[in-house]
Amino acid sequence: MAGNTFGKLFRLTTFGESHGAAIGGVIDGCPPGLIVDMDAVQRDLDRRKPGQSAIVSQRKENDGVQFLSGIFEGKTTGAPIGFVVNNTNQKPEDYSHIKDVYRPSHADYTYDKKYGIRDYRGGGRSSARETISRVVGGAIAKQLMPDVKINAFVSSVGEIFIDKPYQALDFSLTESNAVRCPDLATAKKMEDYIKEIRKEGDTVGGTITCVLQNVPAGLGEPVFDKLHAELGKAMLSINAVKGFEYGSGFCGAKMKGSEHNDLFNPDGTTNSNLSGGIQGGISNGMDIYFRVAFKPVATIMQQQQTIDAHGKEVTMQGKGRHDPCVVPRAVPIVEAMAALVLADFLLQNKIYQD
Amino acid sequence: MAGNTFGKLFRLTTFGESHGAAIGGVIDGCPPGLIVDMDAVQRDLDRRKPGQSAIVSQRKENDGVQFLSGIFEGKTTGAPIGFVVNNTNQKPEDYSHIKDVYRPSHADYTYDKKYGIRDYRGGGRSSARETISRVVGGAIAKQLMPDVKINAFVSSVGEIFIDKPYQALDFSLTESNAVRCPDLATAKKMEDYIKEIRKEGDTVGGTITCVLQNVPAGLGEPVFDKLHAELGKAMLSINAVKGFEYGSGFCGAKMKGSEHNDLFNPDGTTNSNLSGGIQGGISNGMDIYFRVAFKPVATIMQQQQTIDAHGKEVTMQGKGRHDPCVVPRAVPIVEAMAALVLADFLLQNKIYQD
Amino acid sequence: MAGNTFGKLFRLTTFGESHGAAIGGVIDGCPPGLIVDMDAVQRDLDRRKPGQSAIVSQRKENDGVQFLSGIFEGKTTGAPIGFVVNNTNQKPEDYSHIKDVYRPSHADYTYDKKYGIRDYRGGGRSSARETISRVVGGAIAKQLMPDVKINAFVSSVGEIFIDKPYQALDFSLTESNAVRCPDLATAKKMEDYIKEIRKEGDTVGGTITCVLQNVPAGLGEPVFDKLHAELGKAMLSINAVKGFEYGSGFCGAKMKGSEHNDLFNPDGTTNSNLSGGIQGGISNGMDIYFRVAFKPVATIMQQQQTIDAHGKEVTMQGKGRHDPCVVPRAVPIVEAMAALVLADFLLQNKIYQD
Amino acid sequence: MAGNTFGKLFRLTTFGESHGAAIGGVIDGCPPGLIVDMDAVQRDLDRRKPGQSAIVSQRKENDGVQFLSGIFEGKTTGAPIGFVVNNTNQKPEDYSHIKDVYRPSHADYTYDKKYGIRDYRGGGRSSARETISRVVGGAIAKQLMPDVKINAFVSSVGEIFIDKPYQALDFSLTESNAVRCPDLATAKKMEDYIKEIRKEGDTVGGTITCVLQNVPAGLGEPVFDKLHAELGKAMLSINAVKGFEYGSGFCGAKMKGSEHNDLFNPDGTTNSNLSGGIQGGISNGMDIYFRVAFKPVATIMQQQQTIDAHGKEVTMQGKGRHDPCVVPRAVPIVEAMAALVLADFLLQNKIYQD
Repeated sequence: MAGNTFGKLFRLTTFGESHGAAIGGVIDGCPPGLIVDMDAVQRDLDRRKPGQSAIVSQRKENDGVQFLSGIFEGKTTGAPIGFVVNNTNQKPEDYSHIKDVYRPSHADYTYDKKYGIRDYRGGGRSSARETISRVVGGAIAKQLMPDVKINAFVSSVGEIFIDKPYQALDFSLTESNAVRCPDLATAKKMEDYIKEIRKEGDTVGGTITCVLQNVPAGLGEPVFDKLHAELGKAMLSINAVKGFEYGSGFCGAKMKGSEHNDLFNPDGTTNSNLSGGIQGGISNGMDIYFRVAFKPVATIMQQQQTIDAHGKEVTMQGKGRHDPCVVPRAVPIVEAMAALVLADFLLQNKIYQD
Repeated sequence: MAGNTFGKLFRLTTFGESHGAAIGGVIDGCPPGLIVDMDAVQRDLDRRKPGQSAIVSQRKENDGVQFLSGIFEGKTTGAPIGFVVNNTNQKPEDYSHIKDVYRPSHADYTYDKKYGIRDYRGGGRSSARETISRVVGGAIAKQLMPDVKINAFVSSVGEIFIDKPYQALDFSLTESNAVRCPDLATAKKMEDYIKEIRKEGDTVGGTITCVLQNVPAGLGEPVFDKLHAELGKAMLSINAVKGFEYGSGFCGAKMKGSEHNDLFNPDGTTNSNLSGGIQGGISNGMDIYFRVAFKPVATIMQQQQTIDAHGKEVTMQGKGRHDPCVVPRAVPIVEAMAALVLADFLLQNKIYQD
Repeated sequence: MAGNTFGKLFRLTTFGESHGAAIGGVIDGCPPGLIVDMDAVQRDLDRRKPGQSAIVSQRKENDGVQFLSGIFEGKTTGAPIGFVVNNTNQKPEDYSHIKDVYRPSHADYTYDKKYGIRDYRGGGRSSARETISRVVGGAIAKQLMPDVKINAFVSSVGEIFIDKPYQALDFSLTESNAVRCPDLATAKKMEDYIKEIRKEGDTVGGTITCVLQNVPAGLGEPVFDKLHAELGKAMLSINAVKGFEYGSGFCGAKMKGSEHNDLFNPDGTTNSNLSGGIQGGISNGMDIYFRVAFKPVATIMQQQQTIDAHGKEVTMQGKGRHDPCVVPRAVPIVEAMAALVLADFLLQNKIYQD
Repeated sequence: MAGNTFGKLFRLTTFGESHGAAIGGVIDGCPPGLIVDMDAVQRDLDRRKPGQSAIVSQRKENDGVQFLSGIFEGKTTGAPIGFVVNNTNQKPEDYSHIKDVYRPSHADYTYDKKYGIRDYRGGGRSSARETISRVVGGAIAKQLMPDVKINAFVSSVGEIFIDKPYQALDFSLTESNAVRCPDLATAKKMEDYIKEIRKEGDTVGGTITCVLQNVPAGLGEPVFDKLHAELGKAMLSINAVKGFEYGSGFCGAKMKGSEHNDLFNPDGTTNSNLSGGIQGGISNGMDIYFRVAFKPVATIMQQQQTIDAHGKEVTMQGKGRHDPCVVPRAVPIVEAMAALVLADFLLQNKIYQD
């Protein structure tokens, strides 16, 4: 229970269901005196929302954030920042067909097993709409760290992937296309593929790569709260995520030590960076990069066999306005969670100052 | 700071450096009345310790655990369980050559940057010797859940991997060989390869797969403390881990929804299990399985260029009795961390009982 | 930082300033399936609000609570319960006279020292209006424990006090008078005294006694999270509280062991109850009772010498609609905090069930 | 469960029973680079131990602390500090007479009710011997704050009390007498009274006053983790404590606002200090002072009627070497807990630094 708070010192507590009155949260521990750029918060929310392009869900949601406390005359005061985003597009009737049905690879069955009760409207608490609160929290966290650069992008969709190192990419192109892939030739292929998948009534998975730059050395708290362990938890807590790797990741498991070790330059930087900017769970000042795997969206527009709450076999088919591929809209969510982790560790690290 | 506690209700707090007086910890929140099988705890410690076979570190460490509290007349009392494992094999002189040197891809540099001071003897707190406390905590956690089966095994070393699904393996063979690979033909190849690597003075990475069976449905606390998010954090907190995936993992990111969805049987089980036993962050009663990537050990017996604390370039070479491949000894650590996560969620889940 | 969450398993996180858009909070960890009595929540809020009688603040505040999540078809779902109470009576202009002034014995000075910025409107976050969220959280907590009886009442105002043991009182009379004192003769004296004090433009302190009945044995988590330690923290966190004692309290410090020990009856109850229902930090099934001291309200309608933010001496006088005595309105707040503590420990105690 | 950790950033986790192998703990979050004065730690332990004078328990306990980790070459490293104090004076046979008996006003009954099992030797975990770990933790915390002065002293025993404000006392006299009362005339009376009580085979309660000086303004985290709320919890968590008040305390509840308000001087100090150095839960730079009530020790050397675990009435009498009055030995414990609270808030407050 009580799993709806993230962070130790910069803490985000969230609430809200897909079709309840509102999604919202409380940011506790934000240092005072921060001038809040409201537009920047809203921009991140707009990047997350459906209906932005032809390849994502066509639902229309305004998702305007309203801050209720903790900000006075444009600045944070040190008091908790409460916020809400009203759910203006609720159509409960859309979901009557799933009221008693367990959708395959959704959380319907497990929520029923755990809680004995389920808000079946649009996934309820298990809906990705919950991530709105994460994006708001992350947007504030980013503003605390103006020097840190956080750039996530879609690095693969299905079997299509960017076959360049991130250093060869121009992150300013990420937002230039509907897929959020900064390699434009690959973006085009991904977009075409997603359209094709959608026509089939199917969905497809993908990966997001995220690069954190200008992160100071020293962040992370061994032995359990290592920087990459918290980043991993943060990413794995996002809906549909199946894997996380950083630095050399799973490839590193195939390598030899003589190939994998990052040799130091006299200034403390390293010649290579297979460590991914983290050694012993603590940032070393080099770029941090990691990759997150998302499964295909479970709601497909094809007939599927399933069961209802009474164990009866039924046939169902997705309705409505779902994403054929989740990764384009998940890019700002990955960035937000990374920002929450970094902001928390930056505050924790202040303890080491004289 | 204060990153040395793991868990919410079943909490393990650890301490100890490689060459300090002792490694130890406190288990707080263990329910009372548990009859503790001390031999089982020691068996897990023995599986972790060096010197067990020709392919691991040849250091001799007794690693006998001593419980100091919380157990009375053989049973837990509900009071915190303090324990220590004395460091009987301390040879500080072995480490004088690294006192001022930053070993490549070790935590020397980052500990210095973070703390401004470093116990340089054998890695200090960043040494894998710290995992002794995890193994003790995990061994108690396992005893709380006699029905749950936790089986980890080495699934790859370098490019050599088991090319069978875990269902085709006999876990009782895992402990029959030095590599801890239950597929004996593959185990032989791995062992030969590790010996060869060691002759080269080199090291190699690998992966461990872990299967959790008989886990009841309902474990996990959305939206942040999802079961797989905590498993991921637990695994990523182990030294040398670079990646974590569960269920379909990174492969799932290449699949279509129509391929990936697990269809329900009338009894609530699923026909396939690409979900990896977890939906929406909550266990569904099916097998949970995940894979953990370990980088090659950073200490190699070859000359490497590096720097010292003053930024001067120096040449160094590993000395002593290091593992050419960490995964065989990491198997009980992966199991221990999985046990800690499950025990904690089992206790959290009691809240849902009437 | 991040001091706005109370509880471990039943967790209340609050936000909101006196003159911001809203007061609100999130209850995380409320078990699913609870039928929420909305009217009961509102009743407790109404007991807290100003303008109820001639002896409290004459401000008019509606304080209608709106639940935003976590409740579906009248029942809790296990998801976090977000709620807001809009601030409908905001008059920022009322407070311009204190913008730069440090009111004596208020939190103006310390908030400025700590945060470097202050929402000066009506005390901002330090306003007692913050307790609205506590009352909402406590009202839900009470509903989780229908068998537990929580009765707080005003036991003294200034030098006037009830000179009877609580067992001689009829708690059903507490709400029958404006002071919330169940001893009607004493209530009358208190009321007269408060009116007199108000005429003087002055304020007065008082104490609240709280009795918890039908609390099961076993609640409390030694050695730090003892039941009375958490009750004490909960009470001391309420604005204006200066002291807490339970059972024999400060009087017990004057007694001998032979007088103070509670002898057992054969059924495990005790003959006397100077322990106050708690031994070793754990409830024993007897009545729990404690007393909370409130200082006089700092805002008085008399001229006071003070300083402004620049250290300049200024003279000020309270304006507006303040309470001459805080204890009558603090009764539901004391009850709410007690309920939060008990609900949390009841959930924690589920771990001890088979 | 898991109630054996105190603090957020400077965290003390303790373990150990009266007659187990050892008492110990882990301090996690102590900043690196602190030169540890081991003698100062031992001095505080020696002040706590029995057998120091004619008026306390005559048990002989060495209580030598051994640090196991986190300190290297005399300095803290930022790693967790594990420590143990071996129990060298264990005589389990002394306690056979209470194995099945519930001693009045002890924790025997409640531990049995809660845990279903009890380490009956000398109180087990509920023994005051547990406070050894607190004293060690507090001694390290004090060294982190060399400028802060923490002075506790016995302010009353039974009906005998110091009738002077603390400002009139010379704290350097506290350790000059067996009672730890800095007012020597009163100390003499207390000592005589305790001796008399002991002759009667009885015990007596008392109070400790504690004064914290040179505490910087800004400590405390509203709205729940107010400085005095955490101090109160810390004190109430000590065995035998029945009450806590700070500043004007319960007397303040009798006062008028016009008497109670502390008027500001131009430099931000206050003319009076009924606030007790804390306003709105945050320190204001003035002296912090509070008072803690201890009940009489429950073990008396007189015949008492009680019951055993089967509900049978039995007669018992205390044996062995118990304190007739707990407050002299509790003085260093009060100081230690105050130090733990302040150190934690000092670290938390670093977040507000630029």
